[in-house]
Amino acid sequence: MEFKHRHLLGLEPLSAAEIGLILDTAVPFKDMFTRSIKKTPALRGKTVVNLFYEPSTRTRISFELAEKRLSADVINVQTSTSSVVKGESLIDTVKTLESMKADIIVIRHSCAGVPIFLSKRVAASIVNAGDGRHEHPTQGLLDLFTIKEKKGRIEGLKVVIVGDIANSRVARSNIWGLLKLGAEVRLVGPSTLVSPGFEKFGVKIYNDLDKAIRDADVINILRIQLERMKQKLFPSIREYNHLYGIDEKRLKDVNPGVMIMHPGPMNRGIEISDLVADGPNAVITEQVTNGIAIRMAVLYLLAGNLAPADPGEE
Amino acid sequence: MEFKHRHLLGLEPLSAAEIGLILDTAVPFKDMFTRSIKKTPALRGKTVVNLFYEPSTRTRISFELAEKRLSADVINVQTSTSSVVKGESLIDTVKTLESMKADIIVIRHSCAGVPIFLSKRVAASIVNAGDGRHEHPTQGLLDLFTIKEKKGRIEGLKVVIVGDIANSRVARSNIWGLLKLGAEVRLVGPSTLVSPGFEKFGVKIYNDLDKAIRDADVINILRIQLERMKQKLFPSIREYNHLYGIDEKRLKDVNPGVMIMHPGPMNRGIEISDLVADGPNAVITEQVTNGIAIRMAVLYLLAGNLAPADPGEE
Amino acid sequence: MEFKHRHLLGLEPLSAAEIGLILDTAVPFKDMFTRSIKKTPALRGKTVVNLFYEPSTRTRISFELAEKRLSADVINVQTSTSSVVKGESLIDTVKTLESMKADIIVIRHSCAGVPIFLSKRVAASIVNAGDGRHEHPTQGLLDLFTIKEKKGRIEGLKVVIVGDIANSRVARSNIWGLLKLGAEVRLVGPSTLVSPGFEKFGVKIYNDLDKAIRDADVINILRIQLERMKQKLFPSIREYNHLYGIDEKRLKDVNPGVMIMHPGPMNRGIEISDLVADGPNAVITEQVTNGIAIRMAVLYLLAGNLAPADPGEE
Repeated sequence: MEFKHRHLLGLEPLSAAEIGLILDTAVPFKDMFTRSIKKTPALRGKTVVNLFYEPSTRTRISFELAEKRLSADVINVQTSTSSVVKGESLIDTVKTLESMKADIIVIRHSCAGVPIFLSKRVAASIVNAGDGRHEHPTQGLLDLFTIKEKKGRIEGLKVVIVGDIANSRVARSNIWGLLKLGAEVRLVGPSTLVSPGFEKFGVKIYNDLDKAIRDADVINILRIQLERMKQKLFPSIREYNHLYGIDEKRLKDVNPGVMIMHPGPMNRGIEISDLVADGPNAVITEQVTNGIAIRMAVLYLLAGNLAPADPGEE
Repeated sequence: MEFKHRHLLGLEPLSAAEIGLILDTAVPFKDMFTRSIKKTPALRGKTVVNLFYEPSTRTRISFELAEKRLSADVINVQTSTSSVVKGESLIDTVKTLESMKADIIVIRHSCAGVPIFLSKRVAASIVNAGDGRHEHPTQGLLDLFTIKEKKGRIEGLKVVIVGDIANSRVARSNIWGLLKLGAEVRLVGPSTLVSPGFEKFGVKIYNDLDKAIRDADVINILRIQLERMKQKLFPSIREYNHLYGIDEKRLKDVNPGVMIMHPGPMNRGIEISDLVADGPNAVITEQVTNGIAIRMAVLYLLAGNLAPADPGEE
Repeated sequence: MEFKHRHLLGLEPLSAAEIGLILDTAVPFKDMFTRSIKKTPALRGKTVVNLFYEPSTRTRISFELAEKRLSADVINVQTSTSSVVKGESLIDTVKTLESMKADIIVIRHSCAGVPIFLSKRVAASIVNAGDGRHEHPTQGLLDLFTIKEKKGRIEGLKVVIVGDIANSRVARSNIWGLLKLGAEVRLVGPSTLVSPGFEKFGVKIYNDLDKAIRDADVINILRIQLERMKQKLFPSIREYNHLYGIDEKRLKDVNPGVMIMHPGPMNRGIEISDLVADGPNAVITEQVTNGIAIRMAVLYLLAGNLAPADPGEE
């Protein structure tokens, strides 16, 4: 099977078979990490630009390492609130990178839809590294990879996503990926942060966390953004922790093999307790490792679909 | 012909033949961009430091890509207003980089003359990436390269530079390069921003933009710095646009093959209209591509003149 | 002899023989700098992360160059006061880097003990790039290397360290290294900045700078932190300069071959005069060059002790 896309914009546009291809492609890249030389020349002479309009250390480093382990030439452009290239428009900035013959542009932006918008206007491949509340597809893929690696399958698994679903691009990419691969998806969180509209996608919404997790195979715990409290979307950290925090007491009566996931960075003691985060059911550090393998797989597959090179090349 | 300089400080000190050599050297580097592997080992094992005392995304990325495509080891040191290395003097910072065996130091600084000052005091090769209002030689070279590539020659062409000439290092490098290669250079802009002193260099100053561009071969539009308005050097954006903005109406009666250039980033709707910026006469994205080829050529030629290596080397 | 440590946390835990091994290993790396290609594939496919919680240009560039000249894949994470990865705890940040299969983490932190704390909790090799007032071992090593290279030996030399000893990690690493290698160490500085407790380590404390340096072989001048003056730890720059500044007059009656060292960046005119800094006895720029060779040696030796790779590797 061939990967036919030029961009990775989200998991919504991908078929189950395409997602499966990415997961399979990541396996040998992960194996490479146990070798002394964690590097392959697959993207040698290719240029990848990491264009981050939102602050990020974790995702940027993961992409940067994936790119360097593929031997690409890597350029970082990081801008938080400050203007990029003296207030130039987004499209002019990206056209400039395209003119510089960037092969792949990895973009993070606080506005949903920016990667799709750009993908229609530039020749470079666009990888969505998180756009607003829309999608964070490589996070979704690494979560799928981690579940499949540990559980042997995804189909038929009961996966609970806990927390601020409404504002989470991680949740959205997980929902799309899990549903396409046949999992049962359950959402739990404060009613202000879980819109009932999600049901139309085929997920189940629970009000009672304990009921949702009782027979679950996987619990994916979202990071709570503390600024939501200021927006009065939940009353207090103590109450959030009481109702939606995952701690060892809450896990006493659940499936003993339940897998605990968190996209990081964790608010320890709020959405997850130390004992759970560092316990035997957690696969949180494994998720980080898999993130690099998945990003290498995505970049590798996209690099196979770049604009054809001159026939007379070296 | 051999390139005899150890530094690139400006276009003023270069002969027409030397400028021609740089332009010719850039051609095969540009061809390389159409290949699948955009990389050559020419500067492998050489260290290039990008020392930027002024914020810059565009020029820094262009140099960084040029250096990486030449396989150099690249170090970025970027400092906007903040002190470099705890308030150390400029010369101590550069001497430190020299002691670290940096082969080439690419420097941008808000004070004119800094690259020349440094070139007299350190063993490393100095490349001026823009110094105050003095010169921005790689921008001048990429503009010359773009004109020559599209028009087949530079000699005898009529080139109009529009805007804030007085404060522009881009204008100065263009003027030196164009005059040396035999073009006719015309300057237009608010009288507060075009000093009559420029005439002594052999350029023509126009007050009327339409008259200046009527039979022009090239119009190079400078970015207007909006802070000049606060300095009362021009009355309003609307008036600037009315008198000096290049839009489709203004181009109706000019030479239909006129080339439209802009060093970027553009203030769309002020010094240039969208239709002109994205129209068939604009070569603005091509300038960006050529910028990398020119910078590769400059670094490649300078690398040939580094202090001789030990004879017993590998 | 083999280097048995997995981390470089300080010079205190190293034996004289181990320090000697690092110094010897640095010699061929320094020789490499005179070659046209300053690069070796020793760390190809290894990942090194520079995790700097304190602002630093000089030390970060030195490590980065050392890593790149060893062909490692390099990731920079620099955070001054701002939170790393959205307020994540230090240990979670480092565990994340470990999960990303970073082989070596070079860390600078304002709290003494952070590198030791981390070394007990992660699989990656930890290199201390300066922790609070504790140690800055690569600075100590490069100072030892420079003394040995110039003087042919360290044993029996009289080395004076001048300045703010109490707050200096550079002083501490120097003291440990010099004592282990058999030098006589003398400390001089304002009594508020030289705790008498140092004597128990076997150093001599002087109140009179001129007496301390009269027959010295080496004077290592520390950078004075101007914020100490605000803390009333010394009365004025003028008085500090008068009592502890090293200038040409002060050197008139000392050993004519005395070596002048400074870790940089210098406060010229305060702790050191221009004539001394740029004079024939100063080895300050040589220290910078040696810093890269020493860091290459440390990284090279630690890379030999990384967790064993899979036997089936390429």
